[in-house]
Amino acid sequence: MTQSHHEHGHDHDHHHAHQHKKPGGIYLISPSGAVADPAVLDLARQRLADLGFKTSVDRTALAVHERFAGTDKQRLAAINRSLKQKHPIVMATRGGYGLSRLLPLIDWQQVADSGKTFVGLSDFTAFNLALLARTGAGSFSGPTAIFDFGAKKMDDLTAALFVESMCQELEILSFETQDADPVDARGVLWGGNLAMVASLVGTPYMPKIRGGILFLEDIGEHPYRIERMLTQLLHAGILERQKAIVLGRFTDYRLGSADGGYDLPSTVAWLRSVIKVPVITGLPYGHVRVKATLPIGRKVGIATEPGMAHLVLEEHF
Amino acid sequence: MTQSHHEHGHDHDHHHAHQHKKPGGIYLISPSGAVADPAVLDLARQRLADLGFKTSVDRTALAVHERFAGTDKQRLAAINRSLKQKHPIVMATRGGYGLSRLLPLIDWQQVADSGKTFVGLSDFTAFNLALLARTGAGSFSGPTAIFDFGAKKMDDLTAALFVESMCQELEILSFETQDADPVDARGVLWGGNLAMVASLVGTPYMPKIRGGILFLEDIGEHPYRIERMLTQLLHAGILERQKAIVLGRFTDYRLGSADGGYDLPSTVAWLRSVIKVPVITGLPYGHVRVKATLPIGRKVGIATEPGMAHLVLEEHF
Repeated sequence: MTQSHHEHGHDHDHHHAHQHKKPGGIYLISPSGAVADPAVLDLARQRLADLGFKTSVDRTALAVHERFAGTDKQRLAAINRSLKQKHPIVMATRGGYGLSRLLPLIDWQQVADSGKTFVGLSDFTAFNLALLARTGAGSFSGPTAIFDFGAKKMDDLTAALFVESMCQELEILSFETQDADPVDARGVLWGGNLAMVASLVGTPYMPKIRGGILFLEDIGEHPYRIERMLTQLLHAGILERQKAIVLGRFTDYRLGSADGGYDLPSTVAWLRSVIKVPVITGLPYGHVRVKATLPIGRKVGIATEPGMAHLVLEEHF
Repeated sequence: MTQSHHEHGHDHDHHHAHQHKKPGGIYLISPSGAVADPAVLDLARQRLADLGFKTSVDRTALAVHERFAGTDKQRLAAINRSLKQKHPIVMATRGGYGLSRLLPLIDWQQVADSGKTFVGLSDFTAFNLALLARTGAGSFSGPTAIFDFGAKKMDDLTAALFVESMCQELEILSFETQDADPVDARGVLWGGNLAMVASLVGTPYMPKIRGGILFLEDIGEHPYRIERMLTQLLHAGILERQKAIVLGRFTDYRLGSADGGYDLPSTVAWLRSVIKVPVITGLPYGHVRVKATLPIGRKVGIATEPGMAHLVLEEHF
């Protein structure tokens, strides 16, 4: 994977030599699952500080209620507090489960009006997409404090991509792909975790994007379940309305002997057989160490050449 | 659980002493997953013969393609053959995964016009609901050849309920419940496997039932996933439009220490907190041995009294 930014193209080995714009501070909230180990959040804050980000932690970011990071009321209050504090970036400490319940209780216009930059992954897809659906406002799908910045070994490329994205310096995200249909298109980038995207179909929190570039990832879902979720998007008419389907990583599933060779490539082959929309695999995104920070709701470009795909994130049209 | 039928109420211990109407024959098809062991299908046919059903097996019921019981084309052809053969009942040998792909390829009007009585479980929910959505025709959710009639020890009550349902002799299905809201209502009975129901939201295969009685079950889904699927039905406006939500068995899920006590009762409590519709638990239905055969698309009654619920299946209004 390579990145290009405003000044010049370079690979990530040289990354820390480059002088970024000064990034804003980060306010950390836990809108979904409970943080298991507070020390991991401390480590994440240290790493974010090293990257140039001041951080503040919401008062209930470490709360625990059943499997959630606090009661619904506490997590909702945390989201509301995040709109009023000083830092421009609001990051989810982690995913899990919990945002689905909160969707009808969040004042989406207030979220949009706050002008904050929201970043999260997985369960946070519900937030990203509901915000886009209800207001048209953008946000980011990308690393979380616990999983990425609090990892035993933080991935430097993930961190660099995050910093560049927050500084609006990442122009092009190029990645290797062995399985991409030819495409050269522009459209609104949207998507996230496939299970969360599918869970929003038919609800007021599903963006109605035509001519978009839909990216998807998932973890722990058998390919037949991935296919079933894609089938829902297909039958709901969503896939055919896109200009490209970009697949990130689908990880940590287990096949059985009864699968008879059916695996993720079978799902992708089936997908290609039922839609005319180009399918691009290999996006560095998902429940994996190396992940891009992707701007949901932004008009971007996608182009492929043999063995490579390019996601044009900051265009100067 | 007790059943009542036309002649008199009785408990299932006396069941085989009762003389049924002669049931029709059964045509066996495999529209979803591959049958692992053909001998189990033979056992199922013997058991069905003992219950008074002649059976015929479709020529590709034992086919295997990847995890499916044949290619999409083969499984579609099997469904089409089932419409033209002589037996009045068409039973799915098993569930699995495979009907989602076929939904746009099935001629639903031909299925309805065939007048056949379709029975299946789990993945077959897609067939039950698509048929209802596209044509208004009814069908049954109930036992399958492999799982129920081919079981090492067939459950006699499941078999008796199936026979009575096929003979239209089951008037009332009464079951014990420790957790039921008061209700006395009539409406169209519909539902099935929750994952399949949720996967149809937003597609043309989802019935638009108002004032219905929605029944649900699932297997191997963590309560947070059950809740997420219910949330989709909630946010799509489907739950509030029903007169009752009847929960069958949700089995074979594993909790973790991070769940912090969150379990299925938390999901049910949450469900009650967000809808005014009565919720009734305890329906003998799901991926369990003892299961009712339920008429999807039929107008039925539901009533509760302390400790008991009654599903009135054959009313003489």
